[in-house]
Amino acid sequence: MPGPIQSIERAAAVLRLLASGARRMGVAELARALELPKPTVHGILRTLQLVGFVEQSPDTGKYQLGAALFHIGSSYLDGNELRTRALNWSDSLASRSMESVRIGTLHENQVLVVHHVFRPDNSRQVLEVGALLPSHASALGKVLLADDPVGLTDDEPLKAYTAATITDPDLLGDALEQVRQRGWASDIEELVDGEVSLAAPIRDRRAVTVGAVGISGPVERLCDEHKQPRTDLVSYVREAARSISRELGAIPW
Amino acid sequence: MPGPIQSIERAAAVLRLLASGARRMGVAELARALELPKPTVHGILRTLQLVGFVEQSPDTGKYQLGAALFHIGSSYLDGNELRTRALNWSDSLASRSMESVRIGTLHENQVLVVHHVFRPDNSRQVLEVGALLPSHASALGKVLLADDPVGLTDDEPLKAYTAATITDPDLLGDALEQVRQRGWASDIEELVDGEVSLAAPIRDRRAVTVGAVGISGPVERLCDEHKQPRTDLVSYVREAARSISRELGAIPW
Repeated sequence: MPGPIQSIERAAAVLRLLASGARRMGVAELARALELPKPTVHGILRTLQLVGFVEQSPDTGKYQLGAALFHIGSSYLDGNELRTRALNWSDSLASRSMESVRIGTLHENQVLVVHHVFRPDNSRQVLEVGALLPSHASALGKVLLADDPVGLTDDEPLKAYTAATITDPDLLGDALEQVRQRGWASDIEELVDGEVSLAAPIRDRRAVTVGAVGISGPVERLCDEHKQPRTDLVSYVREAARSISRELGAIPW
Repeated sequence: MPGPIQSIERAAAVLRLLASGARRMGVAELARALELPKPTVHGILRTLQLVGFVEQSPDTGKYQLGAALFHIGSSYLDGNELRTRALNWSDSLASRSMESVRIGTLHENQVLVVHHVFRPDNSRQVLEVGALLPSHASALGKVLLADDPVGLTDDEPLKAYTAATITDPDLLGDALEQVRQRGWASDIEELVDGEVSLAAPIRDRRAVTVGAVGISGPVERLCDEHKQPRTDLVSYVREAARSISRELGAIPW
């Protein structure tokens, strides 16, 4: 069987680079980052420009991601069964909890947000669909890690986002074991000071965890006086997760 | 100068096909659509799968767009200056008009929605960011076409979405001339029965129209008793467009 096609792999690497960090890069800069000759990178960029996957700034000559790539990428959501099945249930979870709702799946050891329902209070909120959250510091991520057969690799140290982030791999292992046992996860100011998130697993007909649904909001609203997650909110999140799992065939009756 | 890289062009064509219509396709189906040998398409798919741009269903063996492509595509918005500059103004336009707001740019003769603010009334609404709207049947599209140096090609007939859609190229030409003269556009039940949209151009420091901002809603709210756009709403839309243009440097004082 022939190997992967090198020029496609390189084109993907260019797009990844443009999606991270600087967002606007010149040919020389990209060539350095990819350790490739400039003419090679230039040929890739011209082809990507031709298909609309990158755009070149008329002012600076630098390259950035193109509109065609954005449109094609957005189509991923239409084909995402998890998201389609979860739309109604996440709306109703937002209404019951009066907090914002997110649905995520594991993507390269991070949580990819595939759906986001704003907190139903008309306040200004930023859409997080397409964003990646650190898995060890979010309730969605802990749920996904707890049931992931591969799990977190030990290669990368666990980054601290607040004083409460779990950065010790052994402590994280204990936390994930607890998530498996009680069937839900919390992040209490572990990603953002003052913010709490709760989440539960979504399973499909093979009983595989394919996603997580959860709410997030201020610690004053999501926790009780002992700074523990409010049990009524936990029950709403778990009910929503079970309803979506049932739609995906996890519970046959 | 060497030509474009064939395998990258073909990979882009595969992704375009998966983004449109069926969403899940097998190797044979893709090979037929692209008029390429099956082994060639298989090699492209395996590479795209390796980089996370496509995923293969374990049940059916069919291919669909992958999570990595979605995440990279979403990053386009972060680098989109038009959208970044327009965030505040579109929020305030939604508050003033009490209708939903969209910002669009021209992409392959259609309107690519790069920002969408929900109508501020807590009703259930579907996010349209990343969607493509027909340009001849939407206010956003008419604004963009009116100032587009290339304009609509005559190749494709203008599709009728309702009885009010402008399908005659000459009539559309007249309508676009009117848009240029008065500085704003309307679509009165031309895309969806009962729905009206209004839009005005966003210009940058070179005085080039780089986008359009507009509102949409029911004909009963957006039009007066003569079924003409309400002048107060038109003024809100045009003010928002001018404010964003000023941020982009179109108006230097």
